[in-house]
Amino acid sequence: MQITSKPARESYTVMNELVLPNDTNPLHNLMGGRLLHLMDIAAAISAQKHSNHIVVTASVDNVSFKQPVKLGDVITINAKVTRAFRTSMEVRIEVWSENIPSGSKIKSNEAYYTFVALDGDGKPAVIPELLPETEEEKHLFDTAQSRRELRLIVAGKMKPEEASHLKAIFFPEE
Amino acid sequence: MQITSKPARESYTVMNELVLPNDTNPLHNLMGGRLLHLMDIAAAISAQKHSNHIVVTASVDNVSFKQPVKLGDVITINAKVTRAFRTSMEVRIEVWSENIPSGSKIKSNEAYYTFVALDGDGKPAVIPELLPETEEEKHLFDTAQSRRELRLIVAGKMKPEEASHLKAIFFPEE
Amino acid sequence: MQITSKPARESYTVMNELVLPNDTNPLHNLMGGRLLHLMDIAAAISAQKHSNHIVVTASVDNVSFKQPVKLGDVITINAKVTRAFRTSMEVRIEVWSENIPSGSKIKSNEAYYTFVALDGDGKPAVIPELLPETEEEKHLFDTAQSRRELRLIVAGKMKPEEASHLKAIFFPEE
Amino acid sequence: MQITSKPARESYTVMNELVLPNDTNPLHNLMGGRLLHLMDIAAAISAQKHSNHIVVTASVDNVSFKQPVKLGDVITINAKVTRAFRTSMEVRIEVWSENIPSGSKIKSNEAYYTFVALDGDGKPAVIPELLPETEEEKHLFDTAQSRRELRLIVAGKMKPEEASHLKAIFFPEE
Amino acid sequence: MQITSKPARESYTVMNELVLPNDTNPLHNLMGGRLLHLMDIAAAISAQKHSNHIVVTASVDNVSFKQPVKLGDVITINAKVTRAFRTSMEVRIEVWSENIPSGSKIKSNEAYYTFVALDGDGKPAVIPELLPETEEEKHLFDTAQSRRELRLIVAGKMKPEEASHLKAIFFPEE
Amino acid sequence: MQITSKPARESYTVMNELVLPNDTNPLHNLMGGRLLHLMDIAAAISAQKHSNHIVVTASVDNVSFKQPVKLGDVITINAKVTRAFRTSMEVRIEVWSENIPSGSKIKSNEAYYTFVALDGDGKPAVIPELLPETEEEKHLFDTAQSRRELRLIVAGKMKPEEASHLKAIFFPEE
Repeated sequence: MQITSKPARESYTVMNELVLPNDTNPLHNLMGGRLLHLMDIAAAISAQKHSNHIVVTASVDNVSFKQPVKLGDVITINAKVTRAFRTSMEVRIEVWSENIPSGSKIKSNEAYYTFVALDGDGKPAVIPELLPETEEEKHLFDTAQSRRELRLIVAGKMKPEEASHLKAIFFPEE
Repeated sequence: MQITSKPARESYTVMNELVLPNDTNPLHNLMGGRLLHLMDIAAAISAQKHSNHIVVTASVDNVSFKQPVKLGDVITINAKVTRAFRTSMEVRIEVWSENIPSGSKIKSNEAYYTFVALDGDGKPAVIPELLPETEEEKHLFDTAQSRRELRLIVAGKMKPEEASHLKAIFFPEE
Repeated sequence: MQITSKPARESYTVMNELVLPNDTNPLHNLMGGRLLHLMDIAAAISAQKHSNHIVVTASVDNVSFKQPVKLGDVITINAKVTRAFRTSMEVRIEVWSENIPSGSKIKSNEAYYTFVALDGDGKPAVIPELLPETEEEKHLFDTAQSRRELRLIVAGKMKPEEASHLKAIFFPEE
Repeated sequence: MQITSKPARESYTVMNELVLPNDTNPLHNLMGGRLLHLMDIAAAISAQKHSNHIVVTASVDNVSFKQPVKLGDVITINAKVTRAFRTSMEVRIEVWSENIPSGSKIKSNEAYYTFVALDGDGKPAVIPELLPETEEEKHLFDTAQSRRELRLIVAGKMKPEEASHLKAIFFPEE
Repeated sequence: MQITSKPARESYTVMNELVLPNDTNPLHNLMGGRLLHLMDIAAAISAQKHSNHIVVTASVDNVSFKQPVKLGDVITINAKVTRAFRTSMEVRIEVWSENIPSGSKIKSNEAYYTFVALDGDGKPAVIPELLPETEEEKHLFDTAQSRRELRLIVAGKMKPEEASHLKAIFFPEE
Repeated sequence: MQITSKPARESYTVMNELVLPNDTNPLHNLMGGRLLHLMDIAAAISAQKHSNHIVVTASVDNVSFKQPVKLGDVITINAKVTRAFRTSMEVRIEVWSENIPSGSKIKSNEAYYTFVALDGDGKPAVIPELLPETEEEKHLFDTAQSRRELRLIVAGKMKPEEASHLKAIFFPEE
């Protein structure tokens, strides 16, 4: 019998990384693209844990880089699946950067990546539903629908006027 | 005297890369995060060319990965600045992947990255305006405003109801 | 006022890594040396958390590699400081490897690394004592002394007959 | 029907790269060997474009490194096939290095690499002839013969006295 | 006919490496884990030379890091098999680090790694015995037995009281 | 007092490397450019040993790649200075590749790299003369002059008719 649903916490993944010289630009700041790469790996592990399948990145949502992360800092990436669709799932990632000797720790990023689960032949595989348990998990589960609409609009696969969830959030009064 | 504007074409940057084993997952597909990393480097070079400053990634917009790129494929990344704001600029990236022996070539991605220009002290630097010349450059210049609003909303720095350009896209009839 | 002691749990560090092609030998197994490298980074982050200093590796104890870890597996490295000496500390590392699609998860390694804390001038820095709280932490704290003696003997800095803790463990009857 | 000739421009390949810390020596200059590696990749892509085959490097001609390239500089590598022989081809590479913030841009290298085209079984494959169109392409096409003779002499596969093209260049008066 | 023994010198392997930026921590010192990785590769080549088989790391003994190795230093790693058991062998590694411009050269490490030889199916393969020739080789051959006992005790595969060779070292008087 | 000459053997450098997945093309052959990179590092260490200075690559002579080197092979690179000029020196490199399990070992390359020695300010530094001792070292010392002429001609710094040593080799009868 196939597992039909799994709690969000089972996909929880933590990754700590040390910022090395080759990860940085000439100002000794972590390059944005390198961080996107690390986030992708952490999120993929999380998606694997939920789906028990090999996964491939389907999309990354808007990510903004607020604070510079420096050479020698420790990055902590937390990833957890927020919602599963038939063969794909959304993963939320939080990134913290910490300069341990100076004691500073800041949240540097948040992002959503989506992944498609693949079977052994490289075909999309049906995955378990996600069971949100905490208040935060439930909130992320509920709002996943509107983030998905935004993705489909940006990818040109949905017309803005059809995006009912998104519309309700962006322009609630109308 | 400072340069006050530069044509878009001067920021045009082409990067060709060969997909190597370490760029791939166990299905021998290029990992999404690795591609985001390469796109960031190409876009940063383009932003450097426009601004003549060191630049740091400020954000990446929604990117979707439609087609798998395989080990041994050649990736071509084209990047060009679409619009400059006071100290930041938006760069559009197109990614083509090509399996040369089999003759197949497909557009695998499009994306927008934004960068902030920094002076020698790491402070934001004022940059030249962008001069769009072709029809496509003008279109990208005109629509940059609404992409920016979407970014600000997602980053929690603008309320949806203030996003006039974006609203016009979502609700063209109003 | 300086912190004079910190609980073991504050140094707890988790690192998840995906085994990539360049980490593997021609049999597609993770190379032992690459794993030692990843364990060193995880343990160094843990030692930084306890000491709030830059740290350098002083030694690694005997590590054995029981089970092959394969390309595409996920490695989970857990690290926690077991005991602090004046300017150095011992970190215990546990490594789990997991093939998520097949559902197998095994403990592949355990190891002890020691680190010296350095101040800004690269001189050894005095660090807080470690406070063990759980039964397991207390056991590791108590046995750290004999592991240290073994290290000093192997490094030629202590004579076997002076290693009272070690002797008591190895040859309790004598 | 097989393609029997292709214009030189179809093999034109541009590669932009950012000089990262690990590419440099302790003086923060790009290491010569790392540049030779990047040139090889750019030239191989160019040779793939002409031949539509997997290619392997057969030789590199004398390369001299005149100007130091610095950490953070942008390297632009242009590659184009100059002449095709039965199963091999010569590729000309020009390397520019640019420090964008300071506005300096210099040609740092020129080189010729040769590649052999291979079919699916790893056997040499017959490739299309090269059609030079511009004056420069015609000049490079014409002089390819004497560069080839020099290569064969250096590799011990031709006696100097048989190198008729080369002799005419070295000792035009005779 | 199978080779039944080989002299130690045939497994002798020398590896020189330049310490590059990505090998170093923020103090510009070679990271311990990176050195363990390089030592593993050198030792594996040595074990391959003795056994003429693919080898996998079985264990590394206690390694201590006495002297910092700096960015730009040259590391020389010497590896030689000390003793072969049925399907495994012990390799001794000496590491020298040299700052050539300043003329300083120091021995920075010694270590023992063990490897298991594998046949084409990944099963342990019987290997030739090791023939020690020099005084040093004979000494290392003789003491290999007690190092092995220590490894087995640490790995929980032997009881201390059964470790006759080791006991003789700890309590020579008895 | 400055050292005015050093024997060739003092610059002798051996480097063993294992061919890893990321060093190879889709046919699992070592990429030519990657080998050029490794040869540059080995030769630079050799040049450092002779000159006791930081060195930068000045040129590489024609290198041809005769035999494919495969994933998992061991490469042995031997480098030794052949002749010193005022501030530069020529290094000869021999590359052997070995598939140890199958027992095959072939010489895959020979090459000459030249390096310039730099002092602490990055200015060319005067270096000791090279003392050839063996027959082979003397032969390489004697023929260095003509290889140098060829380099200068190719770099456009010498006219072919001035290349007296080279002419004598190429066209001995004239």
